[in-house]
Amino acid sequence: MTEQILSGFRGRHLLRIGDLTPDEVLGLVNTAHRFVEVSEREIKKLPTLRGKTVVNLFFEPSTRTRTSFEIAGKRLSADVINISAQASSVVKGETFKDTVLNIASMKPDALVIRHSSPGTPLYASKIVGCPVINGGDGAHAHPTQALLDLMTIMERGKSLDNLNVSIIGDILHSRVARSNINAFKMFNANITVCGPKTLMPPNVESLGVKFTHDISEAVEGADVIMMLRIQSERMAQGLFPSLREYSAHFCLDSKVMKKARPDVIVMHPGPINRGIEISSEVADGPYSVILNQVTHGVAMRMAVLYLLCGGAEL
Amino acid sequence: MTEQILSGFRGRHLLRIGDLTPDEVLGLVNTAHRFVEVSEREIKKLPTLRGKTVVNLFFEPSTRTRTSFEIAGKRLSADVINISAQASSVVKGETFKDTVLNIASMKPDALVIRHSSPGTPLYASKIVGCPVINGGDGAHAHPTQALLDLMTIMERGKSLDNLNVSIIGDILHSRVARSNINAFKMFNANITVCGPKTLMPPNVESLGVKFTHDISEAVEGADVIMMLRIQSERMAQGLFPSLREYSAHFCLDSKVMKKARPDVIVMHPGPINRGIEISSEVADGPYSVILNQVTHGVAMRMAVLYLLCGGAEL
Amino acid sequence: MTEQILSGFRGRHLLRIGDLTPDEVLGLVNTAHRFVEVSEREIKKLPTLRGKTVVNLFFEPSTRTRTSFEIAGKRLSADVINISAQASSVVKGETFKDTVLNIASMKPDALVIRHSSPGTPLYASKIVGCPVINGGDGAHAHPTQALLDLMTIMERGKSLDNLNVSIIGDILHSRVARSNINAFKMFNANITVCGPKTLMPPNVESLGVKFTHDISEAVEGADVIMMLRIQSERMAQGLFPSLREYSAHFCLDSKVMKKARPDVIVMHPGPINRGIEISSEVADGPYSVILNQVTHGVAMRMAVLYLLCGGAEL
Repeated sequence: MTEQILSGFRGRHLLRIGDLTPDEVLGLVNTAHRFVEVSEREIKKLPTLRGKTVVNLFFEPSTRTRTSFEIAGKRLSADVINISAQASSVVKGETFKDTVLNIASMKPDALVIRHSSPGTPLYASKIVGCPVINGGDGAHAHPTQALLDLMTIMERGKSLDNLNVSIIGDILHSRVARSNINAFKMFNANITVCGPKTLMPPNVESLGVKFTHDISEAVEGADVIMMLRIQSERMAQGLFPSLREYSAHFCLDSKVMKKARPDVIVMHPGPINRGIEISSEVADGPYSVILNQVTHGVAMRMAVLYLLCGGAEL
Repeated sequence: MTEQILSGFRGRHLLRIGDLTPDEVLGLVNTAHRFVEVSEREIKKLPTLRGKTVVNLFFEPSTRTRTSFEIAGKRLSADVINISAQASSVVKGETFKDTVLNIASMKPDALVIRHSSPGTPLYASKIVGCPVINGGDGAHAHPTQALLDLMTIMERGKSLDNLNVSIIGDILHSRVARSNINAFKMFNANITVCGPKTLMPPNVESLGVKFTHDISEAVEGADVIMMLRIQSERMAQGLFPSLREYSAHFCLDSKVMKKARPDVIVMHPGPINRGIEISSEVADGPYSVILNQVTHGVAMRMAVLYLLCGGAEL
Repeated sequence: MTEQILSGFRGRHLLRIGDLTPDEVLGLVNTAHRFVEVSEREIKKLPTLRGKTVVNLFFEPSTRTRTSFEIAGKRLSADVINISAQASSVVKGETFKDTVLNIASMKPDALVIRHSSPGTPLYASKIVGCPVINGGDGAHAHPTQALLDLMTIMERGKSLDNLNVSIIGDILHSRVARSNINAFKMFNANITVCGPKTLMPPNVESLGVKFTHDISEAVEGADVIMMLRIQSERMAQGLFPSLREYSAHFCLDSKVMKKARPDVIVMHPGPINRGIEISSEVADGPYSVILNQVTHGVAMRMAVLYLLCGGAEL
């Protein structure tokens, strides 16, 4: 069965968690698990994607996601081409469609797209002849982030079934929250979201999650605490009064952590705002798996590129 | 004979079409033709330029040309180094000469230069010890574009001899037009240029081309219609009254295309301005070979790098 | 002994010249000497760092140093990842520490850091698990520059012992001067520094160097003249009255060079300001080894990456 699931990825896109079955999610996690060890070797290189061209097409600045995909591709021996929109034809007024069609005409084997507009990777997937991977599209989705988050939880020996997860912060604008909620629900996790009402989607409970305004309540009993990055531009939009006010209520600090279970893990997709949504004590403390997420990110992107591009046998 | 022509490229520069004989142009097209298939393979990689260093030195922003050369180099197993002038020592006031001499001292095997000033690649070729490839210099020349355009025409089964070509738009500022006119004239094509008088070089007929102000006349009887990108900054310079006015007279739309031959092909070097110089119907329509040009661009740059760097036997 | 010295580099950092013994400096120069020839080959590639990931993390713009490390890494078959701070999470307010920890979590084998703040590479070296190479930190240090400078002098057949070196220009703000002074003193060179008092560190003689305000005096009897780049922003800070005034007193031109020994060599770390600190006649003249420095830079960075990453046998 597993073989069949894995071979079923070949040539497909990865646009959002909802496109995957639970078995496929687990297949990706298992494949990524095997790749963790590659990055620990003396010679961190497999020949599986030799002669494949992976294009990172980034319309938003990004260090970690772009670098993560670049390293993942190169460790599988792919040629990786980075294109950042700032330096590109976009400044000459070219449409997104034409930029994508042009790159597709150079025959890439995978196209990783990050864009501030939701739906752009989906649109691209309909007009190109190779797998498109959503590297984050506006507030819509960031599927490889959710996959690496699930992987990180499972690597810690936790079962997803009946897992108590609290996601804290700006749910409204977060593609990470959206993709993770979809992923967790697939495995019957109990999800609580927490943050100011102004940073919650309307009718947030309709997503199948519990809502609380009280961070202590969110932390208590959670197996996993997932913090979200607060973006200061939201303050300018009047969504919360000040960073100080925000952090007084929603910062995960050691005081709040006293309510947490001793085996809790604390996650954050980064980049973190120390002292705003998370204190340094917690970010650098024993419960934090933030850097493990980054390590697993490379492994998960190796798995995604490997399976979608149909790499040679491992 | 062919062998001799091909080996004759080794160590030479590619600065403008006028440096090539007709046989050499055809040698490049034939070599590129063989490389098209490489980009269609499962494993898009030849070992011919392994251990060679190709430097893309771009003083102007560019997606397609830079990416095209980067992919071309990597598919031949070269190491490709991108340098963009914005992020470079240029901001520290270094002269063009010194930037080039410095890079040359790192012993590249080929140097691709794009610059807004005409003649910069020629100047570079005189001071460095490796092949220099002109990736577009001001309004002067863009030889690999003309070569890939010729290739695209020939791949469509058209003969260059006595070919009726119409080039429409801003001839005055276009390095693409200049290089293509030189290339077409080499093969006795009949060239018509069309556009507002303000966007024509003085005495345009002295280039050996026919001029018309009427796009219908340019389209009628043409085997190849080559559209040029209109740059809105020309409007600010008073060279035409408005984009609307321009497009009313010189946009290639389906109405104008009714005058065209049924086997005509429509070309554009990109990036295209939909609705300005070309309508979406035509750009995406059956006569358009715009994306084939992009595909052939990679193949042509592979041929150029391969022949100039003296790659190992194919 | 040599074998032991070379194997002693494995896993270490290169933060400043002071971390090295004289034997280690000579070991690096000897190793780099062997790499010069690699860049002259038809196939400029050794497999020694295959499967290693080298990350160039540059918080300041740089062509030559970034490109030099990139080419060095690639000629040793490493995967090289470029991260420029402008395009990175830094714009999102991430701390230096977090940026570095994140990259470290992707398991690089070497991290080259350039930053405007002195001490940042040292700080990074304490929190990551791979060798950190200082690619220039503020006015503090630029050890690979000093190493390639020493190498360039030795390649010219000069002995470092009792060498007369004059360093001319803005000593105060120069990491190149600082690293070179430390390196030269290690080998008992006689160092003279020359420039306006406002561009000298307080108590400059306490560095173990002679000071003169007179460029003719500095040039006379020198085996090596090392010019430093003058940065025009220092003028705005009131440190000298004008570029014209500066160059009237401290420009190395052919008139000043009349005082020099016939076997003198003239060095400059680049990028040069022609007509400001050095005249074109001198920069391009027979005494200049400026471009040799660039060539040796690649070889020295190959040596550093090779030894620190513990590459396979040469």
